[in-house]
Amino acid sequence: MNPRLFEIEHSEISKWFSQLQFDICTELEKHESNVEFSTDKWQRTEGGGGVSKVLSNGNTFEKAAVLFSEIYGDTPDFLKQNNQHSILKNIDEKSEFYATGLSIVLHPNNPWVPIIHMNTRFFAANNTAWFGGGIDLTPIYVVDSEAKQFHTHLKTCCDTFNNQYYNDFKLWADDYFYIQHRNETRGVGGIFFDRLAPANSDEAEHFFNFVKEVGKTFLKAYLPIVVENKNKDFNTQQKEFQLIRRSRYAEFNLVYDKGTQFGLQSAGRIESILASLPPMAAWQYNYMPAKNSLEEITLNKLKKNIQWI
Amino acid sequence: MNPRLFEIEHSEISKWFSQLQFDICTELEKHESNVEFSTDKWQRTEGGGGVSKVLSNGNTFEKAAVLFSEIYGDTPDFLKQNNQHSILKNIDEKSEFYATGLSIVLHPNNPWVPIIHMNTRFFAANNTAWFGGGIDLTPIYVVDSEAKQFHTHLKTCCDTFNNQYYNDFKLWADDYFYIQHRNETRGVGGIFFDRLAPANSDEAEHFFNFVKEVGKTFLKAYLPIVVENKNKDFNTQQKEFQLIRRSRYAEFNLVYDKGTQFGLQSAGRIESILASLPPMAAWQYNYMPAKNSLEEITLNKLKKNIQWI
Repeated sequence: MNPRLFEIEHSEISKWFSQLQFDICTELEKHESNVEFSTDKWQRTEGGGGVSKVLSNGNTFEKAAVLFSEIYGDTPDFLKQNNQHSILKNIDEKSEFYATGLSIVLHPNNPWVPIIHMNTRFFAANNTAWFGGGIDLTPIYVVDSEAKQFHTHLKTCCDTFNNQYYNDFKLWADDYFYIQHRNETRGVGGIFFDRLAPANSDEAEHFFNFVKEVGKTFLKAYLPIVVENKNKDFNTQQKEFQLIRRSRYAEFNLVYDKGTQFGLQSAGRIESILASLPPMAAWQYNYMPAKNSLEEITLNKLKKNIQWI
Repeated sequence: MNPRLFEIEHSEISKWFSQLQFDICTELEKHESNVEFSTDKWQRTEGGGGVSKVLSNGNTFEKAAVLFSEIYGDTPDFLKQNNQHSILKNIDEKSEFYATGLSIVLHPNNPWVPIIHMNTRFFAANNTAWFGGGIDLTPIYVVDSEAKQFHTHLKTCCDTFNNQYYNDFKLWADDYFYIQHRNETRGVGGIFFDRLAPANSDEAEHFFNFVKEVGKTFLKAYLPIVVENKNKDFNTQQKEFQLIRRSRYAEFNLVYDKGTQFGLQSAGRIESILASLPPMAAWQYNYMPAKNSLEEITLNKLKKNIQWI
């Protein structure tokens, strides 16, 4: 396989993701006084590997997973099967693939601080190659002004590149981060995009720059909400609600998330693939929020197609 | 659809499961002083419904779900699709189905008491009909003598019907209750069987009687272990290990369990389908038990093909 995307070396993309991992962890550690990220390097038998940075039991984050990977080699069969889960249709012959990405999930201690997820990725195989990524916010309690502020950052990021991106990728996020069996969204959404496949050198630059900007937007969009809320008082009921909301996060990741499924099937490192799962979660049978409570208000806002801006 | 399996009315099977639900809940409540089962009846828009009995925050059980259902109507598309998940191959025409079952998952408080699961089910569609079921034990800490005692009860149940059943269905359980991405079994296994499709009236009686006996064996095999351990002292580390083991239980149910997948796709009641999930679970990044600890000993015993008897 040609290790280039037009003028861009695959390794350049992967190095950028890896540097972003370092930068983000450095920033996040400034919000912790008692712990720092551990670093686990792993190798994939069939080719490539990754660097997992995880922090547990911090003042701010109960669990923070910032995971970089770069894997390659013979294209695994599950990518070639001609079904709804495959990403390469009708490919029987021998082929090679290359995939690199950065995935972040942060589970804060304080229920007033939302869970956040970010991913940037690049995939290449058989003369096809594309970028993907996204950022989405899962507040335990939805606060409209915060959702608006968060989405405004994403829109600013998108608008620099294409006036359609925010609308399109916001809709895509609503569809993607959706827990079908609960008939609810995972949170207040954000942006999601996949298979941005450049047709020429200029487009390759454009998409790569866009993905970089998404990566740089992550902390800008999220940290203000963390700083604002991380020391807010909370009670037992609010902590309990956090555990319930986290169990739905776990449901999404285990049942629907394509990144998790890709990981489980691609023989990556299991502790890295599942590092996104919450440190603690509760499944309460038939949970019903009190009428007009903040909990009920939040659950009523877990809908597609809300215009936060 | 003919609502009979040879001489047996479908409703007779369903009534038996429903009575078993009542009997088991009555017995389990004797082990609780502070709470009893709540009863939720639900209806499925497309046909049928169920009765969910769930108990929370008991002295003995932190969460106990005993779920009966009887659903029928037009065969849903997901059962007809010709892929690995379908249970009816190559069926395009209009068809009706009937499914009834009893599913039990008990999550005890005390980490010395194992999690237990039991299921008995009957499915019919398009001139095909079969029984299925199983019982499997998930100790937080594997105790060989308890696993042996438990398996001996299952073998006794099986041997009355066929000398091959225990061996065959024990192997099947090892394969079925397997968390592939962890390369570990869910617990010490038990028995699992599916598609016991009778070819004549005698076989129909035989299989129905076997499934009844499995249902009756459940408490006989499990309650002695509960009584023996429910008041044992435990420390924080043991409780933590329980939460970790429970998160793997959640992984199995959400990623692999066919009953859960059937439920999610058949538009049943979501709170019933997911009632098997643990009341509280923890995902600790890169958990490693101490050398030669009880935790390590247990993890080393989560393997297929251990002969407990």
